[in-house]
Amino acid sequence: MTANRQVILTARPHGIPEASHFAIVESPLPEVAAGQLLVRNLFLSVEPAMRGWVNATANYSEPVALGTVMRSFATGRVEASRHPDFKRGDVVTGLFGWQEYAAVSPDAGVRRVTDLDLPLSTSLGILGLNGLTAYAGLLEVGRPQPGQAVVVSTAAGAVGSAVGQIARLKGCRAVGIAGGPAKAAVCLSEFGFDAAVDYKSGDLDASLAAACPSGVDVYFDNTAGSISDAVMRRLNVGARVVVCGTASVSSWDPPPQGPRVERVLLTKRASMTGFLALDYEHKRAEAVRFLSDRIRDGSLRYREEILDGLDAAPGAIARLYRGENMGKLLVRLTEAA
Amino acid sequence: MTANRQVILTARPHGIPEASHFAIVESPLPEVAAGQLLVRNLFLSVEPAMRGWVNATANYSEPVALGTVMRSFATGRVEASRHPDFKRGDVVTGLFGWQEYAAVSPDAGVRRVTDLDLPLSTSLGILGLNGLTAYAGLLEVGRPQPGQAVVVSTAAGAVGSAVGQIARLKGCRAVGIAGGPAKAAVCLSEFGFDAAVDYKSGDLDASLAAACPSGVDVYFDNTAGSISDAVMRRLNVGARVVVCGTASVSSWDPPPQGPRVERVLLTKRASMTGFLALDYEHKRAEAVRFLSDRIRDGSLRYREEILDGLDAAPGAIARLYRGENMGKLLVRLTEAA
Repeated sequence: MTANRQVILTARPHGIPEASHFAIVESPLPEVAAGQLLVRNLFLSVEPAMRGWVNATANYSEPVALGTVMRSFATGRVEASRHPDFKRGDVVTGLFGWQEYAAVSPDAGVRRVTDLDLPLSTSLGILGLNGLTAYAGLLEVGRPQPGQAVVVSTAAGAVGSAVGQIARLKGCRAVGIAGGPAKAAVCLSEFGFDAAVDYKSGDLDASLAAACPSGVDVYFDNTAGSISDAVMRRLNVGARVVVCGTASVSSWDPPPQGPRVERVLLTKRASMTGFLALDYEHKRAEAVRFLSDRIRDGSLRYREEILDGLDAAPGAIARLYRGENMGKLLVRLTEAA
Repeated sequence: MTANRQVILTARPHGIPEASHFAIVESPLPEVAAGQLLVRNLFLSVEPAMRGWVNATANYSEPVALGTVMRSFATGRVEASRHPDFKRGDVVTGLFGWQEYAAVSPDAGVRRVTDLDLPLSTSLGILGLNGLTAYAGLLEVGRPQPGQAVVVSTAAGAVGSAVGQIARLKGCRAVGIAGGPAKAAVCLSEFGFDAAVDYKSGDLDASLAAACPSGVDVYFDNTAGSISDAVMRRLNVGARVVVCGTASVSSWDPPPQGPRVERVLLTKRASMTGFLALDYEHKRAEAVRFLSDRIRDGSLRYREEILDGLDAAPGAIARLYRGENMGKLLVRLTEAA
């Protein structure tokens, strides 16, 4: 019988998870209990939040236990179904883990992939959690008004590029902050930002001032750190900061020091709000409809970087944090494996 | 003719304004133009925001110019009126400055004091900007739900004591943070807080943990600094931080360093929002009605510390920042002066 190759967490990282914190093992195919599905994974997600999932400190989900399969969103095909609503061949997405096969109960957040005319990989990126993050974070928390300036960090990434494009579609001025000239160029040429700032080049304060001549009304923050410090100095009265990620900070234990924000929040009557996409499941259908329609009509673009084979997974989180990828990072498992 | 004694800003402080930054001068009584009132001040306000008004850095209002009368809220009696809606003897409150007499136009934010059965001094404290600050900051930005834990810093002060009492009146658990055993005791005995923490005594983290066994849902922050850092570590999911003042920080130029807040905001999906009472003028009538009714029925208490004579004004802001006063700090000018 076919074995199930799995990526197991073997050591708890302090900071960024590296390949050395994982091992690949072969296990028997899982038992499929009554009411469950056996899913064969086709795409595994790699995302910044995984750092939080494997660190021991309290977070918005329990840490992945040592010796268990790495938690991950994945999209796969139903190989066998013991549930009346699903049949062999259905495409589903959910928390199936970094492994080839998963036995899952549909009520554990399994969703059917509906937009089958678009690449299945989109179910983990622009039509998955990344798209929901950009859509709900920007529109529900950032609440941009037409004509306002929206700044987003990691702007060439999966979430950032969607934030900038949604901002433009809503009539805002979109300014992207990205690392390196190639990523800044892609923000302009591919994602249609009004301005792009390469934070690795020159004086970030001066570049931001030039890119945001009327200040910043919404800041969608994926990085924290010195990039955010520079944006905070340019907030307008009533500005909203959506705290979505902290990619630039390698460890929060203890929290690093930075300039206190109280005074700028007070004088600008601005807000900083932590945002977790999973709190906005009720917006998912609306987000997927909005985004998929605009992919089809060509007004919304996305990039993916796809690594091949389960062996690529363990080192992929660190790759993300080194900023080597452009767009959504995925691992593809071949069905013929 | 009577002279007008005035407190003039003579030097721009870096940090807390001291008596040495001001001088007292005698000027002629101001001319009263058509449409204006001549107001004789009875009470002058002293408040933490004055630090911001006299510092040169951009703020929510223009800095007080050197050589001009110190900006201040004040309450006084109309001595002469060239406006049809006001007559001699009316009691009015507004930005009349630290001086004995002011010639003002009613459309420059002059309000009639209506609750004349209560001491006139309340128009500058619990029924003035302090009351509006507590009421609107807590209810509009903090949005506490019955049963939730509301923590407030400078809890024995004019704003803090009102925040705690309003929280209790709305069915919340009120926890006050104050400096020294006397202030902490007053929070319990006079203002009815459920718990009070003396931040100057012992381990603030441990005291807060004991005072907030179920965490913190709303933090009304009047201090920033290490007091706030300790509260931030105890935020619940969905907590709201109302950034109202930064009393513990002596200078923001440059901003002091502190632990970065992004991670706690993210994992707790919490918010920090800068609050300025002057943005909530539309809530003033509601706030004054709520607060004055509860002063009359005995369910709301307030403290005032009244300094006598204009000569006491220049040193009063520093006194506030040294935490020497308890309750609203005012300067009283005698009508017979």
